[in-house]
Amino acid sequence: MPAVTKPALLLDKEKCLKNISRMAEKAQRNNLNFRPHFKTHQSHEIGRWFRDFGVNTITVSSLSMAEYFAQDGWTDITVAFPANVHEHELINRLAATITLNLLVESPVIVQQLRERLIHPIGLFVKIDSGYHRTGVNPSDKDLLDSILNEISQSEKFSFKGFLTHAGHSYKARSRNELERIHTESLAIMRNLNDRYQKQYPDLVISIGDTPSCSVLEDFSGTDEMRPGNFVFYDVTQTAIGSCREDDVAVCMACPVVSKHPQRNELVVYGGSVHFSKDSLNENGSLIFGKVVNLTESGWDTRPTMLYVKSLSQEHGIIHGPAEAIRSVKEGDVLGILPVHSCLTADCMGRYLTTQGVAITRFRYHP
Amino acid sequence: MPAVTKPALLLDKEKCLKNISRMAEKAQRNNLNFRPHFKTHQSHEIGRWFRDFGVNTITVSSLSMAEYFAQDGWTDITVAFPANVHEHELINRLAATITLNLLVESPVIVQQLRERLIHPIGLFVKIDSGYHRTGVNPSDKDLLDSILNEISQSEKFSFKGFLTHAGHSYKARSRNELERIHTESLAIMRNLNDRYQKQYPDLVISIGDTPSCSVLEDFSGTDEMRPGNFVFYDVTQTAIGSCREDDVAVCMACPVVSKHPQRNELVVYGGSVHFSKDSLNENGSLIFGKVVNLTESGWDTRPTMLYVKSLSQEHGIIHGPAEAIRSVKEGDVLGILPVHSCLTADCMGRYLTTQGVAITRFRYHP
Repeated sequence: MPAVTKPALLLDKEKCLKNISRMAEKAQRNNLNFRPHFKTHQSHEIGRWFRDFGVNTITVSSLSMAEYFAQDGWTDITVAFPANVHEHELINRLAATITLNLLVESPVIVQQLRERLIHPIGLFVKIDSGYHRTGVNPSDKDLLDSILNEISQSEKFSFKGFLTHAGHSYKARSRNELERIHTESLAIMRNLNDRYQKQYPDLVISIGDTPSCSVLEDFSGTDEMRPGNFVFYDVTQTAIGSCREDDVAVCMACPVVSKHPQRNELVVYGGSVHFSKDSLNENGSLIFGKVVNLTESGWDTRPTMLYVKSLSQEHGIIHGPAEAIRSVKEGDVLGILPVHSCLTADCMGRYLTTQGVAITRFRYHP
Repeated sequence: MPAVTKPALLLDKEKCLKNISRMAEKAQRNNLNFRPHFKTHQSHEIGRWFRDFGVNTITVSSLSMAEYFAQDGWTDITVAFPANVHEHELINRLAATITLNLLVESPVIVQQLRERLIHPIGLFVKIDSGYHRTGVNPSDKDLLDSILNEISQSEKFSFKGFLTHAGHSYKARSRNELERIHTESLAIMRNLNDRYQKQYPDLVISIGDTPSCSVLEDFSGTDEMRPGNFVFYDVTQTAIGSCREDDVAVCMACPVVSKHPQRNELVVYGGSVHFSKDSLNENGSLIFGKVVNLTESGWDTRPTMLYVKSLSQEHGIIHGPAEAIRSVKEGDVLGILPVHSCLTADCMGRYLTTQGVAITRFRYHP
């Protein structure tokens, strides 16, 4: 293990490669195009690891991130976020050289794009399959038709298909729940396919969430999967059942700076600027991370009974049984599995592999 | 107003200067050393604005941040976080050239520092005046004496005094509550002063939280104030009563990318990677930001009834009355006052003044 003097996001490359391999095989087995979401790792280096598994189409969550990956040779990128017309100059720059797909969910946005874009571009219609964050209500046929009609008004646009993110799967805590959400979402997407396939024989049905893609086996009627979080997984995914704790490929290393045995607490250097502030409700308590023991070669995933109880800007408060708290000393370095690896990786802005190699990543402001 | 194509953290320099001026005058009026906490803005440029108000002592929350500000000529820095012995090399580098104060809260850490440090260093004992995040229980005289005894074992150490952060003031929602917390905290600190002043006639009593420093007037028995958040304030501080909405000096500009009038919602480009994920409980609902209208010269702080209801990685979901939702168009840019400006500023990594000047800041990984 590399020496750590301040909070560092450790990355176990072997676990990460296994996660990629497992999902790539699953996509292949189901005859799906694999378009992994790169918003989780946001790194050129880690992106390259996917190439060995035959990946050449990717998903990102912003145009800036698309630009970052285009700079590393990715030529087929879907921005899985409602198109932001204010960035039309960047869209034009990108679409001049790569295959760029955007998401639309209203005729107004398609019009605004038509007025501003120069180069051919692919458009997916974003469908709300039950998450209710954004996307078109699939039963609103008038809206769907008017969007498709608007798309057909310009030769620059090619309608690519329907895309959804069943993000409500993150609330599932059993395979049954997950299966119900996935089945409902698939039925919605298949209906759309049936309704529009005659008119658009090449339309793509694209689905995305890591829990469904990790756990379930039936993807019939879909053409593409776009999971992202699976590359690292995290404590939330173990709670959902998407992975085992042993599959989590990132772990924060945090020095212990204070002990408060009278209230069974420790303080680590590692706060919301390092972890972000997502939490997970576990048996009625909010947790912000789970403590594991660091080892020579990485970390031991056997449970320690210690967890992150709260976070302020730089402080992490660890809580647990008296004996476990007593066994930790000031100056020890604890491993902490993050609750939400995407946000933790975003905060940290860099990885340190368990072999001691630093890996940089995308920056919102380069 | 500068043109914005993606989420940008707008900074109203005039409001910011007023906030600094008001607090600097308050410190002076109360005969307190002003040692503002720079963890909120974390910027060389904004740090320089404080110099015009006679500030030459500062507080930071990490050794890396101390290094960043030392590089811009700050020579008297307190790191208001329990000393992290793993960073002894950086401590030695800094203490070779500037006056560096660290926080200790156990004899073990003082011993570990003694074995590793080379240059003279100031040590504050961190006191838990009721927040119960960290710090020494002030009634634990044995522990206090053993820390002070340990400090006295080395000529490199000078005991500076007692420091507290009454962070439980953030839970207050009235002046009365705030006054009760502040009065209790002051009483604790005065007791310590009385107990140890004979032995340490120059000991400093240092207090810190923005709510108490903003609202209250009695600081008798203290020597130094270290508020940080006041430089920008935020929606949480308006809820506490520390400031008016008009004093909030930062505002996110976020493009509207989708409308969902059937559920009174909008989607903006601006998510947890931009805002972080802190929330505020307002009348039983969690809010993640308040929407204001952007204007020619900045933003209008009259309430719009729209607020950020939830955040995912890049999406912000805005909720509000039907009419207010209907009046917004896709492509509009909304202003959003952050719930917690320290974390939002940390995520964004850059400011854009309402005059259009970009201001950079500290990076955890330079």
